[in-house]
Amino acid sequence: MIVTVTLNPALDLTYTVDALVPHATHRVAAVAERPGGKGLNVARVLHALGEPVLATGLLGGATGRRAGELLAGLGVPAAFVPIAGETRRTVAVADHDDATGFWEPGPAVTAEEWQRFTGHLRDLLAEADVVTLSGSLPPGIPADAYATLTRLAHAAGARVVLDTSGEALRHGLAAGPDLAKPNAAELAGLFPGARPADVLARGARAVVVSYGPEGLLALTGQGAWRAAPPERVGGNPTGAGDACVAALARGLRDGTAWPALLTDAVALSAAAVSAPVAGAVDIATYQRLRAAVTHTAVAV
Amino acid sequence: MIVTVTLNPALDLTYTVDALVPHATHRVAAVAERPGGKGLNVARVLHALGEPVLATGLLGGATGRRAGELLAGLGVPAAFVPIAGETRRTVAVADHDDATGFWEPGPAVTAEEWQRFTGHLRDLLAEADVVTLSGSLPPGIPADAYATLTRLAHAAGARVVLDTSGEALRHGLAAGPDLAKPNAAELAGLFPGARPADVLARGARAVVVSYGPEGLLALTGQGAWRAAPPERVGGNPTGAGDACVAALARGLRDGTAWPALLTDAVALSAAAVSAPVAGAVDIATYQRLRAAVTHTAVAV
Repeated sequence: MIVTVTLNPALDLTYTVDALVPHATHRVAAVAERPGGKGLNVARVLHALGEPVLATGLLGGATGRRAGELLAGLGVPAAFVPIAGETRRTVAVADHDDATGFWEPGPAVTAEEWQRFTGHLRDLLAEADVVTLSGSLPPGIPADAYATLTRLAHAAGARVVLDTSGEALRHGLAAGPDLAKPNAAELAGLFPGARPADVLARGARAVVVSYGPEGLLALTGQGAWRAAPPERVGGNPTGAGDACVAALARGLRDGTAWPALLTDAVALSAAAVSAPVAGAVDIATYQRLRAAVTHTAVAV
Repeated sequence: MIVTVTLNPALDLTYTVDALVPHATHRVAAVAERPGGKGLNVARVLHALGEPVLATGLLGGATGRRAGELLAGLGVPAAFVPIAGETRRTVAVADHDDATGFWEPGPAVTAEEWQRFTGHLRDLLAEADVVTLSGSLPPGIPADAYATLTRLAHAAGARVVLDTSGEALRHGLAAGPDLAKPNAAELAGLFPGARPADVLARGARAVVVSYGPEGLLALTGQGAWRAAPPERVGGNPTGAGDACVAALARGLRDGTAWPALLTDAVALSAAAVSAPVAGAVDIATYQRLRAAVTHTAVAV
């Protein structure tokens, strides 16, 4: 089973308006509510593919209850730890041109709640082949939280995919996750001039860097590869990285060879772009591209 | 007791950002959550003044639960009817200059839920001296809902203050509410060129039109008056009309003579402007202005 960890999930709201006019009042024509957070998207994609998955993390308050209800409505198995704080909302205001985003800060998490989560994850690890660690850390969670969770997973014999940024990434790498998946901006955020090999030097056993429509670069113990989609896929890139993590987690679980795994990850990422909302994938696009993604071994 | 009816309440969110930039993503520095809706503001003001009040209306879903929790946290007595739909949110994005508003549509209310509410209100009317009917009607509620509630209140011997707009106002007036309180825009929305006397012609027994900082105009069976604050009060005008309704409801309950009642309503409206958030009043401003509001009898 794959366990996806989302310590800072969200209730994602999308408001459709004709045009965003600063300092005016807008009657919202349509409201979409979705369970949000990168790890929840990973779980949704795996569940859509029929893979056994369990979503865990922290949820609190009325907003957390609502996010949990919506996730349950999608049929995704979940076991979150309740916290006293209110899970954050994100609001995306979509007009004819583009979207304007408002991200609430995450809830304050107490030391006791964090302790309770690590104990909860330890219980879940008995069934886990791979654990994904995705997204930001809410206030109160130690900066080395992903290092702690990586060590717990390794002690239980599970492998770890780490997809985060900034301090959380820096600290997490030190515990030696099996795979880190920064995008180009997150790689650059590691330190000025950071290259993919630096992620390995910092502790990860393998790294897959995602470059948006340009595809993926993987540095692993078995070799290095580039993989790219055969065509530009238009759509909504939000959630493409999460679909990539879903593919990588499945491949780690199955021991898939890297070239085939990267092909799968590129095709599933593109299928997420062509689906209208984050956390969904377009299965037809996935199947079409899986046969067409090109990969090449590279020297590093 | 005064019963305040809010059929379309809201969870009001205020997001503080440095500057609103269309099509950018904003990290929200501070989030304020408040129970929203005009009738809830009326109840909060009356409760702050120590007047016996009960807030009722419709609340649904996780958002409705949250609004109810926040109202309970303020100590305001409430007895809402639960509905299956989700109570709406409003989001106000405040930057250094002003606020940008996003109003979700209200939840769809079923015929059964509306029936349940009328039965619920009938039970509450045994204790009610005055009923306030405030704000918009959510989808599914008949356009003549306020006329129905006005007839129920009158049958139980309670008086009615109606504060709404558009179709809901037009239909509500036909049932003869004891007092209607449109603002200038709502009066103009009744029909092109509508004057205060037209509100009486449409059925209300008295009308108080609010003109923002210019004060109030009242046409009643006992005479006509203007009342105005002695000075400009700066602040947040949201909720000033609701504070005015709170004063008017209390005055109707007590049989206060119109000149004294209008003085009180002007002072309490100004006290709402000088309080930072809707639903609150600045007691010092209220007491200071109550001694200083001017009123004059006018010919109509």
